[in-house]
Amino acid sequence: MDFWYKEAQTNDLLLGVRVTDILHSETTPYQRLAVVETVEYGKMLILDGAIQCTERDEFLYHEMIVHVPMHVHPNPKRVCVIGGGDGGSVREALKHSSVAKVKHVEIDGAVIEASKKYFPHLSSGFSDPRVDVLITDGIEYLKNCEPNCFDVIIIDSTDPVGPAVGLFSAEFYGYAYKALTWDGVICAQTESPFASANLLKKCWHNMKVHFPQVGVATGFMPTYPTGFWTYTVGSKKMALKANREVTIRGKYFTKSLMERAFDLPPFLQEMLEGSKKNL
Amino acid sequence: MDFWYKEAQTNDLLLGVRVTDILHSETTPYQRLAVVETVEYGKMLILDGAIQCTERDEFLYHEMIVHVPMHVHPNPKRVCVIGGGDGGSVREALKHSSVAKVKHVEIDGAVIEASKKYFPHLSSGFSDPRVDVLITDGIEYLKNCEPNCFDVIIIDSTDPVGPAVGLFSAEFYGYAYKALTWDGVICAQTESPFASANLLKKCWHNMKVHFPQVGVATGFMPTYPTGFWTYTVGSKKMALKANREVTIRGKYFTKSLMERAFDLPPFLQEMLEGSKKNL
Repeated sequence: MDFWYKEAQTNDLLLGVRVTDILHSETTPYQRLAVVETVEYGKMLILDGAIQCTERDEFLYHEMIVHVPMHVHPNPKRVCVIGGGDGGSVREALKHSSVAKVKHVEIDGAVIEASKKYFPHLSSGFSDPRVDVLITDGIEYLKNCEPNCFDVIIIDSTDPVGPAVGLFSAEFYGYAYKALTWDGVICAQTESPFASANLLKKCWHNMKVHFPQVGVATGFMPTYPTGFWTYTVGSKKMALKANREVTIRGKYFTKSLMERAFDLPPFLQEMLEGSKKNL
Repeated sequence: MDFWYKEAQTNDLLLGVRVTDILHSETTPYQRLAVVETVEYGKMLILDGAIQCTERDEFLYHEMIVHVPMHVHPNPKRVCVIGGGDGGSVREALKHSSVAKVKHVEIDGAVIEASKKYFPHLSSGFSDPRVDVLITDGIEYLKNCEPNCFDVIIIDSTDPVGPAVGLFSAEFYGYAYKALTWDGVICAQTESPFASANLLKKCWHNMKVHFPQVGVATGFMPTYPTGFWTYTVGSKKMALKANREVTIRGKYFTKSLMERAFDLPPFLQEMLEGSKKNL
């Protein structure tokens, strides 16, 4: 028997992954959710036809989206994770000993439940007393949030379709700016510079509307389109570098990686700097 | 009309790329060769069902496989490129002003002809008087080559199937060792650490049979399996770092990249060091 999961990564690109079992499939109020077992990547979480994470390569993504912005902040105590219902970003944030509170805002509680059941390694942080989970719309949450609430905000969103579209807007980054402390830092996943160049440029410009310092970090991510992923970081005051000792050594993230995290390849720097505001 | 090129990257992984035109298709004495036009990546060269290069992302691969080993050598004058009939590696090698001669050994002359016709940007180096093209088997060539002939040898092979299998063997690395000068450097493309972990481990061990210093550099490569590629470098005498001024600034390769080119992520370092010789 020959079962494949095939993702249309763009109109013109497709990734196929051999599947050995469909462990879970449901339609939540927000999206279609599936958990499958694959040969190459172990268990895989799929939302609305897009691979969210796999057992084998999730560390590459979660270490980047969390540890890069967390080291830009000199002393992150209060962290907000928007999206990322699988729990991987929460898990990584908790590795920083300075962290007193992680507010996790996820629109779809079914993702958290599926992760607790099928991805215990990803969802391990949910039982930590420092974590406060809120099932609600992240945009509304940050819009109405008290100012100066968070040191670091992580936008661990799905692709920019459906309810996640607003998470890539200048308006939303403005809410995040207000919710951050004076030395606050934001990090958003901003897709592939090859498959989604315009989206990346748009996010970069949108973040620059509010944040005086914006940088882009890149990292490998085999199960995302082109394997080449970006994380856009905005900072209110702190320079885009490690502003404290790099205390984390992950499977991918290291002190050395942090030292050149914002050192973009020339083709990408030119792509961003040559891009127009109105995309 | 909906045309796709679908590559079985492994038994369990598939990449699909939308095709708008088939420009060329032939069966050479060595392999099936096709050139297609794609939406995402421009023109694409395919050999025996495996994407070799595309107009849009080839620079990522060619800059890594050439400029990393070329900077490990203090003064590379004589370079040998085995494989790489598209000409991308030859083109990059010629950018080093120290280079007096590039010996290009390709088993299949049809690849060079196709590149000259469809990829003028890749094949531009073939008209340089420093380039000497030899259509023959790279293994036999290095086996019978005079000792101390080359400062740098670049193994720009296809995947380890068919005639290319021998290009990943310890025996072949031994021929290369002999053909290199006392401070010579070799670099081989060694596939993806996710899709071909065992092959990478094997090459690393095989190269260590002969070369006292062996390092692995990693780089993005969207159209190769998992987008995550490795380049294994062996050095007879020189330390694995830039041993001269970094004079090249490419679209991807920079001085900064060279400074941490051999700085492997912990998961990959552990994978290599924990691996056994007999794979």
